[in-house]
Amino acid sequence: MTRIESEEELIGRFLAPLTRGAVEALGLNDDCALLTLKSGQELVLTTDAVAEGVHFFPDDAPEDIAWKALAVNASDLAGKAAEPSGYLMALSFPSAPETQWVARFAEGFGKAQDQLGMTLFGGDTDRRPGPLTVTITAIGLVPAGKLVRRATAQPGDLIFVSGTLGDAALGLQLRRNPGLVRTWGLDATTRDHLLRRYLRPQPRLGLRTALRECASAAMDISDGLAKDLGRMCKASGCGAEVDMRAVPLSQAARRATTSDAQILAPVVAGGDDYEILAAVPPQRKEQFTKLAASSQIEVTEIGKFLAAGTAVMFVGFDGQPVTAGGTGWDHFEQANIPSAR
Amino acid sequence: MTRIESEEELIGRFLAPLTRGAVEALGLNDDCALLTLKSGQELVLTTDAVAEGVHFFPDDAPEDIAWKALAVNASDLAGKAAEPSGYLMALSFPSAPETQWVARFAEGFGKAQDQLGMTLFGGDTDRRPGPLTVTITAIGLVPAGKLVRRATAQPGDLIFVSGTLGDAALGLQLRRNPGLVRTWGLDATTRDHLLRRYLRPQPRLGLRTALRECASAAMDISDGLAKDLGRMCKASGCGAEVDMRAVPLSQAARRATTSDAQILAPVVAGGDDYEILAAVPPQRKEQFTKLAASSQIEVTEIGKFLAAGTAVMFVGFDGQPVTAGGTGWDHFEQANIPSAR
Repeated sequence: MTRIESEEELIGRFLAPLTRGAVEALGLNDDCALLTLKSGQELVLTTDAVAEGVHFFPDDAPEDIAWKALAVNASDLAGKAAEPSGYLMALSFPSAPETQWVARFAEGFGKAQDQLGMTLFGGDTDRRPGPLTVTITAIGLVPAGKLVRRATAQPGDLIFVSGTLGDAALGLQLRRNPGLVRTWGLDATTRDHLLRRYLRPQPRLGLRTALRECASAAMDISDGLAKDLGRMCKASGCGAEVDMRAVPLSQAARRATTSDAQILAPVVAGGDDYEILAAVPPQRKEQFTKLAASSQIEVTEIGKFLAAGTAVMFVGFDGQPVTAGGTGWDHFEQANIPSAR
Repeated sequence: MTRIESEEELIGRFLAPLTRGAVEALGLNDDCALLTLKSGQELVLTTDAVAEGVHFFPDDAPEDIAWKALAVNASDLAGKAAEPSGYLMALSFPSAPETQWVARFAEGFGKAQDQLGMTLFGGDTDRRPGPLTVTITAIGLVPAGKLVRRATAQPGDLIFVSGTLGDAALGLQLRRNPGLVRTWGLDATTRDHLLRRYLRPQPRLGLRTALRECASAAMDISDGLAKDLGRMCKASGCGAEVDMRAVPLSQAARRATTSDAQILAPVVAGGDDYEILAAVPPQRKEQFTKLAASSQIEVTEIGKFLAAGTAVMFVGFDGQPVTAGGTGWDHFEQANIPSAR
C-alpha cells in the first residue's frame, strides 16, 4: 500500500489533470484562479464542505464522496438557475492518503465534473487531524439580472418541487440499518434506489431555463422541505400551505412508508434530497411545467404561498393541519450529533 | 457561559453584519454570492483553510484567528498584484461555540476585513468533529492582463523580497517554547515583534502597483523562501542564486540568531512570513524600489534568476554555497506532524 508523499505529487499527478488545461486554472501554478466574464454575465459563487462522518461514511467509495462534494455545490447553483462553470477544492486529510484512494477520488471528480459541466480552477491541500474534508467553492454563471432569488416569493405563488422527496433520508436510514430492507418490504431495486438517492444526489441543473423564465423565487432543498420552505417564507415575508398528499414520492418511498406517522419525518424534514423548491405565479404554471418537462425533470405543485403573518402549514394525509415546527437539519441543535447524516 | 444555539443565530447575529449590506452577499439569503465585473476587470479567486492545532493554537485569541484566516488569503491576492474585494467563509466547529467567543471572532473579522479592504459575501457553517476550521475563499480584482504570474520569471531577473524573513518561524518557536526569550537574549520589544509576526501576518497589498508595473513574476512566501523560490523556479524553468548575506532580517531576528547554523533554518525554510517574492528585470529595479517605497514597504534584492538547468543555490554567510534541498513546509512529508506551525 503506497501513500501520497508530497503535495507536489497530489497536485501534479492527480489534481492538475482535472483542470483540463482550463486557462482559469493558470496551470495550478499561482495559488489562485483567474476569471473573466463575457459582457452581460454575472458570476455566482457558493461554498459547501463535506466531511467524513458528517456528510459521508468513512467506508463510502471515493468516487461517491467526490460526486457528493461537487454535486451539493452544483445543486446550490441549480437552485439559483445558474450554469456551473468551475470550482476550487480545499482538501484536508488527517494523514497522508493512500495513492490508490486518491486515484479513485480524482477519477470520481473527473467524471462528476464532466457530468456537471465544471472544471477544476484551483484549490488548497493540507493535512490536519479530524475528518477528511472536501470544501468546494463552486463558480457559476448567470445572464445579468437572471439569478433567481430566495427572498422574492409572492403570496399566491404556487409551490413547486422537483423530483421526489424523502428518498435520501430513507436511504440514509437504510445505510445505517440495513435490516430496514425487511421492515420496509423493499426489493433490490427499491433498496438501491433509496441508497443511491442518498449517495448520489442529482443537481437539477436542467431546470435552469424553467426557473429563469417562470419562477419568482427558488432554492435547493438540502435541509428538508419544512426547514428550507420556512427559510424561503421568512426571507420573502410570506406564509405557505403545503398539502402532504400532493408531495411527490418515489415508488420506493411509497413502499417504505406505510403510515402517516412514519412518512412525515423523512418527507417533510429529511435532508439531502437536493431537489428544487420554486415559487411560480399561477399564470406561469403551464409554461413552467412545459419547460421542466422538456428537460425531463418532473415538477409537482404541492401548495401555495400565503400572505405575511401566516405560518408555514402542512395539511396531512387525513386532511388535517400538522405542525412541522422544529423539523429539518440544524448543525447547532443539541440533538444533532455529528455522525453521517 | 452561553453557546450558539442555531445556525440562524450564528449567521443572523454575528455573520450578517460582516456583509456591511454589500449587494454581492444577497443578504446571506441565497447560499451564494452574486458578482458583476466592470469592463476591463478580471476576477482572482483563491482558497486557504486555517485549522486549530495546525495553523493556530487552541488558546489563540479569536481576533488573532480571524486575522490570520483572512490575512493568509489576502496575501495570496497580494502575491498576484490583485486588489481584495470580498470573501466567502466556510466555518466548521466541533461543538456549538461559546457566544462570547463567536462575538470576538466576528469582531476580529470585522476589523480585519476593514483593514484588508474586504467584505463578507457568503459562506457555509457546520458542526463536525475535528479542529475548528476556517476556510476562506478570497475574491480579488485585477485590471485585465495585469495579474502577475508565478511562472514568468526570466533568467537575469533580480530576486526581490519584501519586509524581513524568518520572523514568523522564530515567533512560532517562541510561542512553543517561551524559555527561548532568555536563550535568544530578547527584550520585551523584540519578543513581541517575533510573536506578532507569527500571529498577525501583514499581506503586502501595498506592493500592487509596483508588482504590476515592474515585476515579471511574483508570489507570496507562505512555506519558506527555499520552497517557494524553488516553486517559482520550477514553474518558470529557471535556476536561481540567493546571497544569504543580503536577506533582510529584523532587529529581533538578528538578535535571536547569532550563528549561521541557527539562522539558516528559520530564514531559508521557515514558513508563515507572507512576504512577497518578486522577479524584477534589472532595468525595472529602480522604478520597483521607488514604487515600493512610496507604499512604505521595504523591498530587498537578494539574488538573481539563472538559466534553466541550474539549481536553486544559496550562498551562505561564509560566501560558500549551501544546499537547501528538502527545506520548507510540506503537509505530506512524514516529519511534519500536524501541530500548530
